[in-house]
Amino acid sequence: MERLSEKIKKSEVRAAARLMRLIENEEPSADDILKELYPSTGNAYVIGITGLPGSGKSTLIDALIKDYINKGKSLGVIAVDPSSPFTGGSILGDRVRMQQHSIEDDVFIKSLPTKGWKGGISKVTSKMITVMDSMGKDIVIVETAGVGQTEVEVKELAHTTVVVLVGGLGDSIQIIKAGILEIADIFVINKSEKNEFALDLESDLNDLFSLDSSREIKQGNWRPLVFKTEALNGKGLSELTTGIEKHKEFIINKGLFKSYFIKKSKKDLMQAIMDDIGLEVANRLEKKDQYKKMLAELENKDTDPFSLAKKIVNKILTKD
Amino acid sequence: MERLSEKIKKSEVRAAARLMRLIENEEPSADDILKELYPSTGNAYVIGITGLPGSGKSTLIDALIKDYINKGKSLGVIAVDPSSPFTGGSILGDRVRMQQHSIEDDVFIKSLPTKGWKGGISKVTSKMITVMDSMGKDIVIVETAGVGQTEVEVKELAHTTVVVLVGGLGDSIQIIKAGILEIADIFVINKSEKNEFALDLESDLNDLFSLDSSREIKQGNWRPLVFKTEALNGKGLSELTTGIEKHKEFIINKGLFKSYFIKKSKKDLMQAIMDDIGLEVANRLEKKDQYKKMLAELENKDTDPFSLAKKIVNKILTKD
Repeated sequence: MERLSEKIKKSEVRAAARLMRLIENEEPSADDILKELYPSTGNAYVIGITGLPGSGKSTLIDALIKDYINKGKSLGVIAVDPSSPFTGGSILGDRVRMQQHSIEDDVFIKSLPTKGWKGGISKVTSKMITVMDSMGKDIVIVETAGVGQTEVEVKELAHTTVVVLVGGLGDSIQIIKAGILEIADIFVINKSEKNEFALDLESDLNDLFSLDSSREIKQGNWRPLVFKTEALNGKGLSELTTGIEKHKEFIINKGLFKSYFIKKSKKDLMQAIMDDIGLEVANRLEKKDQYKKMLAELENKDTDPFSLAKKIVNKILTKD
Repeated sequence: MERLSEKIKKSEVRAAARLMRLIENEEPSADDILKELYPSTGNAYVIGITGLPGSGKSTLIDALIKDYINKGKSLGVIAVDPSSPFTGGSILGDRVRMQQHSIEDDVFIKSLPTKGWKGGISKVTSKMITVMDSMGKDIVIVETAGVGQTEVEVKELAHTTVVVLVGGLGDSIQIIKAGILEIADIFVINKSEKNEFALDLESDLNDLFSLDSSREIKQGNWRPLVFKTEALNGKGLSELTTGIEKHKEFIINKGLFKSYFIKKSKKDLMQAIMDDIGLEVANRLEKKDQYKKMLAELENKDTDPFSLAKKIVNKILTKD
């Protein structure tokens, strides 16, 4: 029988879905298959799209998908957003606009539930990207919701990060406080049609980027682009897709495409190391008498977590 | 000179703020002070309040604070929400309602920026709770925004978790998908006055909880309470605070208060162990030739992150 990894590399949807289920259940056997896929990865272009629920991310992604399909590209979408219509779960009868793009249409959509992922959501997202990449998807879109930890983590996995905002009181404040200035390559001000604040927000953003000191210079000195869109009626969308292409060219021309892949591999490595060590440490703490005694000291407040950690690490790590 | 930890235990605000700054900057020296505080902790009651931006969390927290102050309790608030008015940063001139409760009023407010925290936001939140706990705060409120990873992580640090919803299309779907059913001890349906969906949401929630199988039995079999509030005009707030007290009594009567503290200590321990090991591993990968060679193999795709991780862990861990 053909190996699962071979089927995935041929872009067989059911094989990929099976591996994704293993990843989602955090089964160690998933890693054995990912190993075999690894040499076939590093080719997909990853676009992160983030914004609060209700900002219109999904409508924008919908438009992006159509655009890329017209250009003959194959796509994967990873929705790290429990409220995303892309999840297609249809619980309680939600109508899912996106169902028009089904698996057969060269768009592979995978949604990730929000839960206490071991090692964080970025670990499982990274593995899902690996699967879609090895399937030969040209573009992988990662959709995240909100202004939190997740966005910052997922940013590190994307070549291009698009932040979707809706103009309005407090938005500028939110951007600054949330550290979103640092993660965005492209800003989209959506629902700009009936929004008196859209213009303010646009000029605020442009003001901010004109202050060199306000933004960490990174990614080879890219100045974020700002687009106004009305996603529902399609206004501004072709400018946006052109903007994303522009950033993509920039990333490739600066040689950042390959360095991203190396960075991702190292991240995956570090994560795998820490996972393996974490399992082993938890196992020793639970099973070995010397460690069990130490835990009892902690419960009785005879020691504290920080001092005890040093003692345990000293026992667990080789000297060299 | 008096030690910083002694000053913090006397609830000196400037000393506590100094330690919090060290924690925020992820300075290792913070842990040395936390060590000294540790024996004085385990007394505060921690309430987690989560909900999307705009759900009215802050108004609810405002009301809770007033209520607890009236009852003679001291409070700490940790806002893990970049858009929270509690942050008081006043960037771009945002009016902060909450400033009426200043530090002098026995409410200590600390906001945490969203960024790529090493080890996740829950680590730093846990440390902030330790500081406020050792200051002798009776109640620590942790405010988080959204429907993400953060909420699930922070849940593990709270004795009582309150989820704030606004009735409306898609809310029920959101609850189920986001795994929020599992984290909430108390649901609040806020802005219920002018919202035709509030009633639907209330009955949906009550229906869900009447199905035993729909909810993991945990926390000694607590059935989540559902409250309707109109935070802005104060309606339903006294019922809510009574509900929180009811859950608090439940936690204490079932002996869960102490077991939470032990769980938190073990989590802090595991986190500290993994932090120490992570630093050491990163250091070896960067400095030692044998590991540098391995990394080069990864870059050239001669190996994959998962196989390499096994090899490295084998070298790094003692056999026993």
